[in-house]
Amino acid sequence: MSRSNLSSYLALAQHCADAARRVILPYFRQSLTIISKEDDSPVTRADREAESAMRAILEEHTPHHAILGEEAGASGALGKDWLWVLDPIDGTRSFVTGRPSFTTLVSLFHEGRPVLGLIDQPVTNERWLGLAGEPSRYIAPHLPGTIGTRQDVPLREAELSCTAPEIFRPVQFQQFQRLQKKVRRTSWGGDAYAYGLLALGQIDLIAEDTLKPWDWGPLSPIITGAGGSLTDWSGAPLTLESEGAILACANATLRDEAIQALSS
Amino acid sequence: MSRSNLSSYLALAQHCADAARRVILPYFRQSLTIISKEDDSPVTRADREAESAMRAILEEHTPHHAILGEEAGASGALGKDWLWVLDPIDGTRSFVTGRPSFTTLVSLFHEGRPVLGLIDQPVTNERWLGLAGEPSRYIAPHLPGTIGTRQDVPLREAELSCTAPEIFRPVQFQQFQRLQKKVRRTSWGGDAYAYGLLALGQIDLIAEDTLKPWDWGPLSPIITGAGGSLTDWSGAPLTLESEGAILACANATLRDEAIQALSS
Repeated sequence: MSRSNLSSYLALAQHCADAARRVILPYFRQSLTIISKEDDSPVTRADREAESAMRAILEEHTPHHAILGEEAGASGALGKDWLWVLDPIDGTRSFVTGRPSFTTLVSLFHEGRPVLGLIDQPVTNERWLGLAGEPSRYIAPHLPGTIGTRQDVPLREAELSCTAPEIFRPVQFQQFQRLQKKVRRTSWGGDAYAYGLLALGQIDLIAEDTLKPWDWGPLSPIITGAGGSLTDWSGAPLTLESEGAILACANATLRDEAIQALSS
Repeated sequence: MSRSNLSSYLALAQHCADAARRVILPYFRQSLTIISKEDDSPVTRADREAESAMRAILEEHTPHHAILGEEAGASGALGKDWLWVLDPIDGTRSFVTGRPSFTTLVSLFHEGRPVLGLIDQPVTNERWLGLAGEPSRYIAPHLPGTIGTRQDVPLREAELSCTAPEIFRPVQFQQFQRLQKKVRRTSWGGDAYAYGLLALGQIDLIAEDTLKPWDWGPLSPIITGAGGSLTDWSGAPLTLESEGAILACANATLRDEAIQALSS
């Protein structure tokens, strides 16, 4: 895995996100008619067409890499050295309710671990980029924000975030509620966008459950390259086989405190 | 209450929102240092200074009107014919976590009922305007969206939204959870911004609790002028003395179904 390869893959990931934007934006806030048949809803069409556009780019430029997408599943062997993992629209709930906080997620796994991550918000024109071993980048012509997680926040002052109470399994929800009691405040909603805010030092902790590799893979290099960590609820690294209980932390002290709060 | 008066008051409300924007934007995503003393946090400063800027404008142009603000409380007698009700930063949680979904809210009450409402999102440059008896307006140079609530959505297909589970009193939370079981989906977060999305036909139902007049006053003319309704959970009009259980609905059929679900 050479650094110059990784840089060219990052350019490719950005190319994918640009293509997804072109597909998705015309569907945003256009879902004025509710279509009962789930398969034909605007969000499903946007999701499917955006993934298809990204796959076409990857298949052309990296034909020997495997691809795992939220919509179309796996192509190529997942055991391959290189695996692209895609989520064309993360935050379906946000997208269908017209909130500019859904995102497009692109990641590249090498030998089972994510080494490249991209979060893109097409409406606000915000993009986060992460590469293993490098500082993350935040590109947003119209919004303020600087990469870097908060390093000096004790648990009792921490801003906790979570997409929805419904994403937890029952036992994990009890654990999450124990964590909630120890932090300053909980804010709800956000999906992957919230992890971008953690990388900007705006949120300190995110605990979620039942996330898939296409949900967390892209976030990991971005958060790590911003000074934070993304692990499971015991602090262990995430793998393609992880159960989906995810903990993002602004710093190592906070992670230790959060793990203790979740397990006590 | 003449129509030309109301139009000039709407221009004044926009003048207030412009002033609040100038105060608030420099604080957005600048809260990199957590300050324990609540009174001196960036959000508190932004809140206080934005309200003060709006009050100065109103005191100059409508010296005989009363003002009620979230920060500085009441000036003038609330029993007066005309009462401005202000919330400089609605969605404190959103603001402190860097989400561009906090809003500035301005409303004007006449004889105890809101007749003018304004929702402003400074970062995305979105503004909703409502005047009693007129169609609402949505001004957003960079985002799509058209005023008009969905008129044809049955409860089982409805998109429900709520800011956070923590805003409910215990009994009201049980009622809310009964409503959740009857709708298509619940999305979380959003504060007043979600009511703007309801006016754009993106969300169909919002049920919240413990809201204050500065939270709901500005929303009422906007939602009514978009084809929806804003009432308490029994369907009765809201007053300055209401307990804060708020129900926003896209249409009258949905309102009847939602009231039944909340009370059953």
